This record gives sequence, structure tokens and C-alpha cells, in this order.
Amino acid sequence: MNYYPASIRNLIRQIAKLPGIGEKTAERLALHILKAPRRDAEQLAQSILEVKERTQSCSRCHAWSDATVCHICQDASRQIGQLCIVEQPADMVALEKSGAFRGVYHILGGVLSPMNGIGPDDIRIASLLRRIREEDLKEVVIATGTNVEGEATAAYLAEQLKAWPVKVTRIACGVPMGGDLKYVDQVTLKRAMETRHDA
Amino acid sequence: MNYYPASIRNLIRQIAKLPGIGEKTAERLALHILKAPRRDAEQLAQSILEVKERTQSCSRCHAWSDATVCHICQDASRQIGQLCIVEQPADMVALEKSGAFRGVYHILGGVLSPMNGIGPDDIRIASLLRRIREEDLKEVVIATGTNVEGEATAAYLAEQLKAWPVKVTRIACGVPMGGDLKYVDQVTLKRAMETRHDA
Repeated sequence: MNYYPASIRNLIRQIAKLPGIGEKTAERLALHILKAPRRDAEQLAQSILEVKERTQSCSRCHAWSDATVCHICQDASRQIGQLCIVEQPADMVALEKSGAFRGVYHILGGVLSPMNGIGPDDIRIASLLRRIREEDLKEVVIATGTNVEGEATAAYLAEQLKAWPVKVTRIACGVPMGGDLKYVDQVTLKRAMETRHDA
Repeated sequence: MNYYPASIRNLIRQIAKLPGIGEKTAERLALHILKAPRRDAEQLAQSILEVKERTQSCSRCHAWSDATVCHICQDASRQIGQLCIVEQPADMVALEKSGAFRGVYHILGGVLSPMNGIGPDDIRIASLLRRIREEDLKEVVIATGTNVEGEATAAYLAEQLKAWPVKVTRIACGVPMGGDLKYVDQVTLKRAMETRHDA
């Protein structure tokens, strides 16, 4: 590292902090930035600062947003009667990419995890119940993960929502598309068989 | 891409401009920066700006430097009688990492390439000859690449330096360490045989 002047060494060190970026890649990227037009480097630095400055949590669904209310909550073409509950903003992005859901979201910001001391008050369940009270919802889709904590959270939410006149569904668990049955784990296969439906 | 607010989209786009970073990796890095402490993001942005601001070309050897004269040219422990000619700053860094050379460098900033219209006046040969005139050099090692242009540049430099009372050497070309002869190309093998030396 002493082969470089301090400013380059510092840039390499900062880049190498990013996940999945090793020393070699950091060196390559730093030298690229060094040789790139000044304007490109300024734009990159500016966009890093801006993302921290401007990105906030949507006041309604808690998704990432540049405004108080995110673009999905503001979108008049969304079916506001359908609400999908996910753990994290990235889960919402994954569902959006699939194009399978045209309703609105509620981001819990985590899952129930008694082992880690995370209870109902630590994730956004209170604001979820407030939305269910105040919004005219037809269906709530619980799309937390299918691991132990995601399942437990889904069960807890289903129980909480029983009191409300709203249809509560759970995203299906089964064999992934293109999946070969012999490579699918037993628990998934068992679930896929249990939740089989008319073809 | 429309799944994200504008500030995140912009950051992903800026990161994806870096070499070897695809859309997926850019997305992962952008989300990491979004979630990372503000101070980390600021340090990264700052280091990007600083590398453009502070890094300059050493007035003597043309290496990357934070000062007018680079840390190698300033280092009193270097053997200033030995000068190694390389194409680019990155070549100097590679040699420094090997630890095999303790002299000083001269960075040409390119190679002769008549095909691309690059002649002796387009790379730093004039300042090289000035250094040879002014500095008390014992040996000049020509360490340009071993491709066609690097070889031609080395031959040109060797010819130019004939007039001066200085020993001129060329970095050796041969079978790489750990190399298996059957996988080495014919030209390299031929050269390795021609330049064989006493064992």
C-alpha cells in the first residue's frame, strides 16, 4: 500500500470497505477514478452524498423514498385495497421487479425474533394496525420470508389480523420455477405437497 | 430501475459506470451505502474528490504523487544512480511490489506507436534525456512491456542512450515463475532460450 501516495491509499481503503470488494478490486477502481474525467468522479461523490441526504422512509409504508410519501403510495394506478407486508425495502423491490403485485406495501423493518430480543413493539406492527384501521383494505398479503422467524412473524400477524374484516393471505411456498424436485429440500417439498391446489 | 427513488437510481447508475461493476453489483453497493453510517459515506465521497484534487504527476519521474516530488524521488535511501524506465505509473507500482528495484523511476506515459500516431515527442523522452544529462546515473533499466510496441520503444530508447556513458539494460523476458513449459507460448520460449544464462 505504501506504493501509492496517501490520497490514493485512502481511496483504496474506503472502497475496500464496501461489501464484496477486495483489496485488488479496490485498487483497480481507485486507479480508474484517478484516471477518469474529474466530472465523473464528482458525480459519483455527489450521488453518494445525495443518497444519504435525500433518501428517507416513506411516512406511510416505510419504503425508501425521496419524498415524505413514496412514489408507490402516491401512484393513483395502484390498487390501494391490497396491502402487502414485507420485512425490508429490498423485499418490496424484489416483488416490484416480479410485477406480480399492483397494490401497496407495508415494510415491517424486521421480523419477530425473541432470541434477539425483537418483539412486536420493535417492528412496525402498530403502524400496520393503524393502516388496517384507517385504510379501506380488501386484502392483506403477508410476504415475510419463509425461514423460521419470517414464518413466526406471519403467524403472529395472521392472528392479530383475525379481528379485522379483511382477507389475509400468505405468499405461497413451494418448488421454485425451473426447480428439479430431487434438488429441493424436504421441508419445501413437504410444504409444496401440503399446499397443493387444483391444476 | 424505477423501483427505487431517484437518488438511489442515480447512485446505482454512477457506480455501474465503474469498470467491472455490473448493474446487480452496483445495486448491492448502493444499498450498502444507503444503509451504512453517514460518516462512512461521507469519507468515501471525500476520498473520491481528494484523489482528483490532490494527486498530481511527480515533476521528476511523473509518478502519481501528493506533492510536487513523489515519495520515491524524495527517499534518500533509494539508489539514485539506477533509473528504471516504465510505461505507466501502474507498472512502477508492480515493480515496487516485487521489491526487486531500489533505484528511481521514469514514467514515459505511453509507448511509441506509429499506428496510433504516437511518436517520440508524445511520450516523456525529452525529459528522460534531460535527466540522463543532469543526473549522475550508473544504469538505466528499460522496463517497457514485452509486446510489439513496448519492444520497439525499448529498442528506440537503447539506441538513443548509446551516446551516453551509462549502462543500459533491459528487463528479462522468459518463462514465468511456476510456469509449465508446455503452456508457454513459442515466442516467449524462443526468447527464453536465446537469453539463457549460466546456471
